[in-house]
Amino acid sequence: MASIRRLASDAPGFEAELASLLAFESAQDEGVDQAVQVILEAVHTRGDEALLEFTARFDRWQPKAARDLEVDPKLARAALDRIPAAEREALELAAQRIRTYHERQRQDSWRMEESDGTVLGQQVTPLDRAGLYVPGGKAAYPSSVLMNAVAAKVAGVGELVMVTPTPGGELNDYVLAAAAIAGVDRIFRVGGAQAVGALAFGTATVPAVDKIVGPGNAYVAAAKRRVFGRVGIDMVAGPSEILVIADASADPEWVAMDLFSQAEHDEIAQAILLSPEASLLDRVAHVMERELPTLPRHAIAGASLAARGALIQVRDLEEACEIANRIAPEHLELAVADPDALLPKIRHAGAIFMGHHASEAIGDYCAGPNHVLPTSRTARFSSPLGVYDFQKRSSVIRISPEAAARLGKTAATLARAEGLEAHARSAERRFLKPR
Amino acid sequence: MASIRRLASDAPGFEAELASLLAFESAQDEGVDQAVQVILEAVHTRGDEALLEFTARFDRWQPKAARDLEVDPKLARAALDRIPAAEREALELAAQRIRTYHERQRQDSWRMEESDGTVLGQQVTPLDRAGLYVPGGKAAYPSSVLMNAVAAKVAGVGELVMVTPTPGGELNDYVLAAAAIAGVDRIFRVGGAQAVGALAFGTATVPAVDKIVGPGNAYVAAAKRRVFGRVGIDMVAGPSEILVIADASADPEWVAMDLFSQAEHDEIAQAILLSPEASLLDRVAHVMERELPTLPRHAIAGASLAARGALIQVRDLEEACEIANRIAPEHLELAVADPDALLPKIRHAGAIFMGHHASEAIGDYCAGPNHVLPTSRTARFSSPLGVYDFQKRSSVIRISPEAAARLGKTAATLARAEGLEAHARSAERRFLKPR
Repeated sequence: MASIRRLASDAPGFEAELASLLAFESAQDEGVDQAVQVILEAVHTRGDEALLEFTARFDRWQPKAARDLEVDPKLARAALDRIPAAEREALELAAQRIRTYHERQRQDSWRMEESDGTVLGQQVTPLDRAGLYVPGGKAAYPSSVLMNAVAAKVAGVGELVMVTPTPGGELNDYVLAAAAIAGVDRIFRVGGAQAVGALAFGTATVPAVDKIVGPGNAYVAAAKRRVFGRVGIDMVAGPSEILVIADASADPEWVAMDLFSQAEHDEIAQAILLSPEASLLDRVAHVMERELPTLPRHAIAGASLAARGALIQVRDLEEACEIANRIAPEHLELAVADPDALLPKIRHAGAIFMGHHASEAIGDYCAGPNHVLPTSRTARFSSPLGVYDFQKRSSVIRISPEAAARLGKTAATLARAEGLEAHARSAERRFLKPR
Repeated sequence: MASIRRLASDAPGFEAELASLLAFESAQDEGVDQAVQVILEAVHTRGDEALLEFTARFDRWQPKAARDLEVDPKLARAALDRIPAAEREALELAAQRIRTYHERQRQDSWRMEESDGTVLGQQVTPLDRAGLYVPGGKAAYPSSVLMNAVAAKVAGVGELVMVTPTPGGELNDYVLAAAAIAGVDRIFRVGGAQAVGALAFGTATVPAVDKIVGPGNAYVAAAKRRVFGRVGIDMVAGPSEILVIADASADPEWVAMDLFSQAEHDEIAQAILLSPEASLLDRVAHVMERELPTLPRHAIAGASLAARGALIQVRDLEEACEIANRIAPEHLELAVADPDALLPKIRHAGAIFMGHHASEAIGDYCAGPNHVLPTSRTARFSSPLGVYDFQKRSSVIRISPEAAARLGKTAATLARAEGLEAHARSAERRFLKPR
């Protein structure tokens, strides 16, 4: 194992080292973007015909007709019946916990009434139709289907449309089973930028949606960026990250496994440990060296840790929290004796895991909160995926005749200050020329 | 006046006419985008020096040093003292009503505890620092300062930084006064893509922010798109729109003024009236022809109405609501005797004005709800600007030792189904090797 780097916050040059460790520019590949533009344009103008061509070319199977792109819902139920009982129960338990948590996120309409009868409020409604992109092939993650689909269904989305590529024509049973559990309404076996285009523009077979969510490769991400505005999109995710803050009470084996669980995702994933305890850092490093070779994905995890991992000795837990706020990590574990003392100091993090037993792995699958979280410091201004991403608000404004006069004068004054005479007249006509 | 077009929903070809009326592609100008890229790069690499250069070139005044770009807060207070009393009182009343409404939008942290001591929740925190872009010169809108800044301050944003160009070096008193009322923390007299770059990257003088909001021209919009991801942005707004649904109880003069108040914004603004009453449509058309020439901005309003306006006869109010949902307008007025009967049928609109006295003009200035609303059909998936745009959430997860065993098994099962062994071990280590 190329050893994971050790840093100390009081060493000269630490600031620069930390900055270079965190630096990650998600290079937008011009070639990818141009290819995506061509694909989107083809889907926009030629619809299903383009979907059939791209599916044959990229997914290496030939649908006979566009209707073959849709998966019969019975197949999803059949997959659910076919998978092993342990996996089925695990998916069902996870879905139930995700549902319970997300139900707390549902926002309700509200109104406030004033004494003269003026009523102001906000009407909250779900999206009519949402699209869920699910990667296919080897990186098929049923947990991701649950996280996205349950949030959408709890919000009350009218129709949830899932798209997923089936390389070589092969459907993934776990993905289908998760879709059945989550109540996905329609499933299409199409992927890549062409699937994003189909959801954004609609074709004769695939209905147009109002928002597209879900992870995907560089082509999918570029396509989502391009259709944004016509439809809503969720965030475009960067590499996954974990930051662990540990004190002397932490178990080095547990911490090491948590760093591994992030590093095994991807060579560019980032796992960082902050602790004031040099001996804990030593023991974590020791466990990692010993156990890394035993991981099936040791090559990926090793590359990630060597390139972007770090064990950092800090002055104290206070400083650890300051550094955490600068990093604004996707996942933050507070592996300390008293996590409640640190929580108020944490301003920016996607998810905060409190205490020794809260492993990120449990959060990834079944604690209940969403595992789609802001990456690359975007937790400074954005939030986990949630029910609120599938609801939207309309302001509601009812003005009494008295308020139309009183507020109308104010509106007319401001409108004229801004040079907008018709605005002023629109307000004034209601009280200068009452009906 | 080039007459506003009349359509009828039961006429042959209506669907195509409506589609072409609504069609609006916000052409992204390649030339603008390339110029913006150069400006952003210059601000990123050369900081204040680039800001001084671009300010001299585009705003035609020469700051002596970078510190001249900052406006002393005393100047904003002085502007507030200098403007006429009526305008000051109007701004203060508007700010107070906007504040009261937005306080209802604030979201609180919450927790749910399970019987074994497992705790799940969401911690809600404000942004550390937000940037507010305010257009300068003639199109200076103090109301827009209030709408953006009050929402940010109610959210609890730590520092609110306003940027505004001062063409020829001239500061706008109303804009400064609104900033003073809303409690803007720092003001910089810099505009265009260079101001967006300064807020995104930070310079020696202008602090980097976490999110940039506020309207601007094509350069500002392109710059916001480009820095999105590094910082958050609000929506990129399209042309403003109003849709009025009116029945026989509506006053044609009031309706005509409301259509004008939208049309006077911009040649590409859109004003549409839907009514089952042919005679109402006739009378509205009559008022419009009579009064258009009397508007100071009649050239703009006339161009907007001719290009994108319409008076549409519909079969009934039910159909009017269906068409409204397809249009998903920024502003929707229900100028009918019983707006409560229609409200539940409205799924997509930025703001809904209930009944005859609720003019859009009052909503634009002082009803209380935000006037920054989703345009171009984006109300299908997005919401008015609000306090929630300046808050973000972190999931909070505490797992009891018992839950670590129970849920750990579930997580390990799903992790192995996804081929992620380190995730499985991270969950299992907590109960197979307890401390």
